[in-house]
Amino acid sequence: MAANSNVRAFQQIIKHSQTNVLLVTKLRGVAIIGAGMVPVLASPEKTLTQLFVDAATKAVDDAGVGSIDSIYVGNMLSGFLQNQEHLGALMATALQREGVPTYKIEAACASGGVAMNAGVKSVLSGLEDIVLVGGVEKMCGYSTPAVTEGLMMAEDRICVASTGVTFVGLNAMIAREYMRKYNVKHEMIAEFPVLCHANALDNPYAQFHRKISVEDVLASPLVADPLRLYDCAGIGDGAAAIILAPLERAHQFTESPIEVLASIVASDSLSLHQREDITTFEASKTASRLAYEKAHVESQDIDVLEVHDAFSMLGIMALEDLGFAKKGEGVKLIASGECARDGKLPTNTFGGLKARGHPVGASGLYQIAELAYQLSNKSDKCQVPNANVGLAQSVGGIGGTIALHVLSRSD
Amino acid sequence: MAANSNVRAFQQIIKHSQTNVLLVTKLRGVAIIGAGMVPVLASPEKTLTQLFVDAATKAVDDAGVGSIDSIYVGNMLSGFLQNQEHLGALMATALQREGVPTYKIEAACASGGVAMNAGVKSVLSGLEDIVLVGGVEKMCGYSTPAVTEGLMMAEDRICVASTGVTFVGLNAMIAREYMRKYNVKHEMIAEFPVLCHANALDNPYAQFHRKISVEDVLASPLVADPLRLYDCAGIGDGAAAIILAPLERAHQFTESPIEVLASIVASDSLSLHQREDITTFEASKTASRLAYEKAHVESQDIDVLEVHDAFSMLGIMALEDLGFAKKGEGVKLIASGECARDGKLPTNTFGGLKARGHPVGASGLYQIAELAYQLSNKSDKCQVPNANVGLAQSVGGIGGTIALHVLSRSD
Repeated sequence: MAANSNVRAFQQIIKHSQTNVLLVTKLRGVAIIGAGMVPVLASPEKTLTQLFVDAATKAVDDAGVGSIDSIYVGNMLSGFLQNQEHLGALMATALQREGVPTYKIEAACASGGVAMNAGVKSVLSGLEDIVLVGGVEKMCGYSTPAVTEGLMMAEDRICVASTGVTFVGLNAMIAREYMRKYNVKHEMIAEFPVLCHANALDNPYAQFHRKISVEDVLASPLVADPLRLYDCAGIGDGAAAIILAPLERAHQFTESPIEVLASIVASDSLSLHQREDITTFEASKTASRLAYEKAHVESQDIDVLEVHDAFSMLGIMALEDLGFAKKGEGVKLIASGECARDGKLPTNTFGGLKARGHPVGASGLYQIAELAYQLSNKSDKCQVPNANVGLAQSVGGIGGTIALHVLSRSD
Repeated sequence: MAANSNVRAFQQIIKHSQTNVLLVTKLRGVAIIGAGMVPVLASPEKTLTQLFVDAATKAVDDAGVGSIDSIYVGNMLSGFLQNQEHLGALMATALQREGVPTYKIEAACASGGVAMNAGVKSVLSGLEDIVLVGGVEKMCGYSTPAVTEGLMMAEDRICVASTGVTFVGLNAMIAREYMRKYNVKHEMIAEFPVLCHANALDNPYAQFHRKISVEDVLASPLVADPLRLYDCAGIGDGAAAIILAPLERAHQFTESPIEVLASIVASDSLSLHQREDITTFEASKTASRLAYEKAHVESQDIDVLEVHDAFSMLGIMALEDLGFAKKGEGVKLIASGECARDGKLPTNTFGGLKARGHPVGASGLYQIAELAYQLSNKSDKCQVPNANVGLAQSVGGIGGTIALHVLSRSD
């Protein structure tokens, strides 16, 4: 990748200004130089702030940086559940980093992935060099109706949420239609959470350390037909963070910087009733096309993959929308064993949203941090061999927002 | 300014990469090419989405742009009051702009100003050219306790809000200490809202069209001693939006682009008890120092000023913290008449937060749009003469976040 990276580094966009004077602009390279996370679990003893500070401090220590130029915080639910906003200044204060520019980014369950993109833009802008991007969510200790109501803030309150449908209900509609359209049985989709639980066994930060079988998924309580409990990511508290730097400075801090080859956010119409086909996320397709183009890679170049499996169905759809399987055939890819850590396309190698856990505003950053660990050979028992290029997909709402990142080794 | 602007445009930052190859990076110029707003008032017939769409559509029409590359939404309270998040995809869908990257930015009452900064970075990053930045808030139709609780989300829920102190209560503490420390009487501070109400008389988008006197302020109901009703911005629904473009493309769209000379966000410790002096906002001082440096201007170069007068006291403090008056002497500047539209430092020329209105997540964008109108001579009865350089200050929480923008004519 290093050669490609150098080629890209000198692709200069040359433009003539209106005054006919030559302006030369160039996109900087951006790298991840550190990462940190806390275990996903119910953490009643830790506040939202403490969760964030713990993950951010680990990332800062990992990168070995002194000063930080700005802080991005991804979060979805703090206004609703903790009655707390202004997370930028709150976290900067708690980190004793007052003074720096701070931002809270919200994009439903893709808040973490979109915060990552905003952080990358910040470095690209040339205004800032060392940028902390973290995601945090605290969901435990609240009633199920409260969390259910909170998650439905991802959907249009007036036209959709007001009907009483839940977030899992909407995803169940997708699953039902997918199973009908492609003649796919639930047990085939259920292979996805089985894979995630197997991978999470080796991840000390994972919420669930329990092997499950397809039979376990099918026998678990029904949540919204056809989705059962083990088709759905759980409720968890968590935080993850990374440190970004300009690529040309990255080696000052680490021997194994991870280059951000592409950082893409794409949107789609917010609600299912506005779409022609609910078994695909158009924004995933748009974002992956743009990401592959920007990163100069194709889907077969991806060595390790993190997809947003908040529901088993979404994991399967992601494999298709990102170009790893034809529509309706994502289940075959999972069944083939190729998505296992020793397969050709290791997927959700730390357990994914289902088993590592899904503290919604943090999940996008867990994915990025996990890819950074994989690509720098720091994944211990979760490590996959020969990981040079990784892809992370983060989904907001029912696919209304997608954040995609392509990362690569740069040593 | 045009000459200065060209000088800046060619100040290139030249860096040697680690591989000893010369990299040339240059900050693009950024310009505002269109603006739009809706009147601030109680709008029970309009949803949050409709407010945003109305302002954004006006801005798009004003700029005459076709495609838009990304959308930034500034908002503080939608999760708490409307149980609605994911505003990026929600607004993109309502604008029939699905596909583009979207972002919701939250920074308490500075959400609009910080969204503006994030939009500017987006253009600077080189990834996007035409960027829509809007702010929206819907605060009317809810109980006073609900809105009061919502606004306190700007403060630390656990350490401060839980004590029962309100947002106006915290600002009252500042006013009390300021009056003691600088031996200033309430009637002197009350000149600020009097000025704002006078200016708003000519602004068709203002919430209040009523001239008030110092006596009216002092006779209005006590809210939190010493602050009275007319010291405080009201509750309103509103939205404002602008369109950004690279400076070198701006003249394609408009004869009077407004250059963004500086876009700065700074933070401070979140809460008053963490600060040595509560009569000044350190982040305002930090941000203005950085903004003047970046813009190559000094405070005396500012021809038109918009400050965040959510409370009369904050308006006075802003005059001092931004370098227009010594500490304790902001009241003299107001008393001198120099802040009137025909004075040397026209301030809050459309009525400011007090009289134009303060839909919190939108206020920062109202300021920017108003400055854009002033600098392009489109302010009708609010127009000030010879306005070449403008400054807007947006405050989040009790000064935990400050967003500052320096804008100039570029025709």
